[in-house]
Amino acid sequence: MASHILGKIDLARFQFIEKQRGNNDSPASKTEVENYGKNDCKLEDEINFLNAIPKQREEYDEFGQGYWKNLSLYNASGVAEDSQYRDAQTCVPTEYMNNCPTIQRLINEVFNSKYLRMVRARNLIDGMVMPHRDFVELETNVRYYRVFIAIEKNLESFHSDESGVFQMQPGEVWFLDAAIDHAAINFSTNSRMFLCFDFVLEHGIDERVIFNQNADIDFEAQPTYISREPMNEITKERIIANVSGLMNKYTFRDLVFTLSKFHFTHKLTVREAYDWLIEAAKRTNDDDLVIKSQQMKRYLIEHREINERFTINSWAA
Amino acid sequence: MASHILGKIDLARFQFIEKQRGNNDSPASKTEVENYGKNDCKLEDEINFLNAIPKQREEYDEFGQGYWKNLSLYNASGVAEDSQYRDAQTCVPTEYMNNCPTIQRLINEVFNSKYLRMVRARNLIDGMVMPHRDFVELETNVRYYRVFIAIEKNLESFHSDESGVFQMQPGEVWFLDAAIDHAAINFSTNSRMFLCFDFVLEHGIDERVIFNQNADIDFEAQPTYISREPMNEITKERIIANVSGLMNKYTFRDLVFTLSKFHFTHKLTVREAYDWLIEAAKRTNDDDLVIKSQQMKRYLIEHREINERFTINSWAA
Repeated sequence: MASHILGKIDLARFQFIEKQRGNNDSPASKTEVENYGKNDCKLEDEINFLNAIPKQREEYDEFGQGYWKNLSLYNASGVAEDSQYRDAQTCVPTEYMNNCPTIQRLINEVFNSKYLRMVRARNLIDGMVMPHRDFVELETNVRYYRVFIAIEKNLESFHSDESGVFQMQPGEVWFLDAAIDHAAINFSTNSRMFLCFDFVLEHGIDERVIFNQNADIDFEAQPTYISREPMNEITKERIIANVSGLMNKYTFRDLVFTLSKFHFTHKLTVREAYDWLIEAAKRTNDDDLVIKSQQMKRYLIEHREINERFTINSWAA
Repeated sequence: MASHILGKIDLARFQFIEKQRGNNDSPASKTEVENYGKNDCKLEDEINFLNAIPKQREEYDEFGQGYWKNLSLYNASGVAEDSQYRDAQTCVPTEYMNNCPTIQRLINEVFNSKYLRMVRARNLIDGMVMPHRDFVELETNVRYYRVFIAIEKNLESFHSDESGVFQMQPGEVWFLDAAIDHAAINFSTNSRMFLCFDFVLEHGIDERVIFNQNADIDFEAQPTYISREPMNEITKERIIANVSGLMNKYTFRDLVFTLSKFHFTHKLTVREAYDWLIEAAKRTNDDDLVIKSQQMKRYLIEHREINERFTINSWAA
């Protein structure tokens, strides 16, 4: 099952005011002066508060680029620094919630606390994560169910999976299927804050149990899928040839990022980048590049051993 | 004046033991078991301690890639979180020094505290910084003088400037001229810890005043410059054509990183990447790409207005 929209909340109930600005006219850190009083834009104030919290942990990820943030809003311990999901029965607010009453109200009004295990605030700015699958190794007699809500408008921010490229609009609640090929990008330097909810459901139960019964959800909301240009075989061939002409051990990862971007704008599958990568590597006549590109495809989208660690920039000496 | 070696300390005096390993056979986080007792390798223990400290601040830098670390060991306040250089007369150890007695002894034995203003531990793993100059805006009636000491061996780590590509060997003390075009890279996932010293000197004074008079320095130490392959015009032209064929707003930065890497392996100037970038952009017939590449060259290596902020991924809407 691909990712799909579940419904939409009216964020105006949570003091969300759509900003009138170009896609890219301000850096993420800039505080904008808008034409409304301070008390009218609580959600934006809270997003600014969350964006200003320093990153707690080292999160260098060689498969991602750009600025990532992952803040624990509700978790098993209530400790803000505790940002890793684990199986537990409790789900309590962290100290960040003291400064985010509107977000807390949203969480409490909309979602069924019975199934909720964790809430995080996630931002991705000026970056992407390469196409990959998540290989979940937790117990499988329950169903792990992840949901995103976009709480900012960002026209340069996209997700992709086998169903296409989509843009989560403010207030939309999406089920995110991380077990199939997927990727995410924010081409801009503007903030793109999401709330990420982890639920544990019984198998076979209707997914709408995650919502409170009196939550005001528009279940007819339609998703925004992006219309992409087709790409003909000549262009594909040219891209592979160009990448091959630039590829060596040192440029390899930059070119993986380059290739990963085309499917956001052109009608290609998420995983096609890896097939092109392998073909480009073969044309270099450097066996290390061929092996690395094949290993990378396997590791990121096909199969991973338990605790397997794969590193792009470790090459045989 | 380009960067140059000032001398060499015998790191064996500071329990440095050269590790016998391949270039790339272990990730940075792995603790290696070596054939010597724990008390024999103090410098390595202290490096491991420093590498394990979580990053304090958000340091997203769009002109860099990989994992960066910048830890304050001595500064004006003695507060570890205070990692920005500023003019001050005091230079006192931070709390990190409690766990780094060998590094502290090295600093005290080798350097003249009269001129010393700041010491930082710096690491760059699996990453690079694009070719650039630093445009220092501090007062100019004194001379800011920056020195690096490599305290780990890393065969995949390089610096570059107008004099070529060089590799700082363990114990070597280097003057770093950041006011000319320069770049740095660690192609590997292994640690490459440096100590970075900031001095303030009077103009015209001999640079060796930074050392204590009884410091045991080998002033005859010879630098390691890397022999690079020449690159003919046909290859240059092919690289430009390949980059042009892949370039759009979304792949632009990945391709800047790609181009920035060739001068580490081939006999090219540090800044040549930007000329190729501009030429590749012109061939796309996309004016935004041409303007961006020209602005980027100016901002990074030619001229910058006071407080000017330039962002790669902000494009006209």
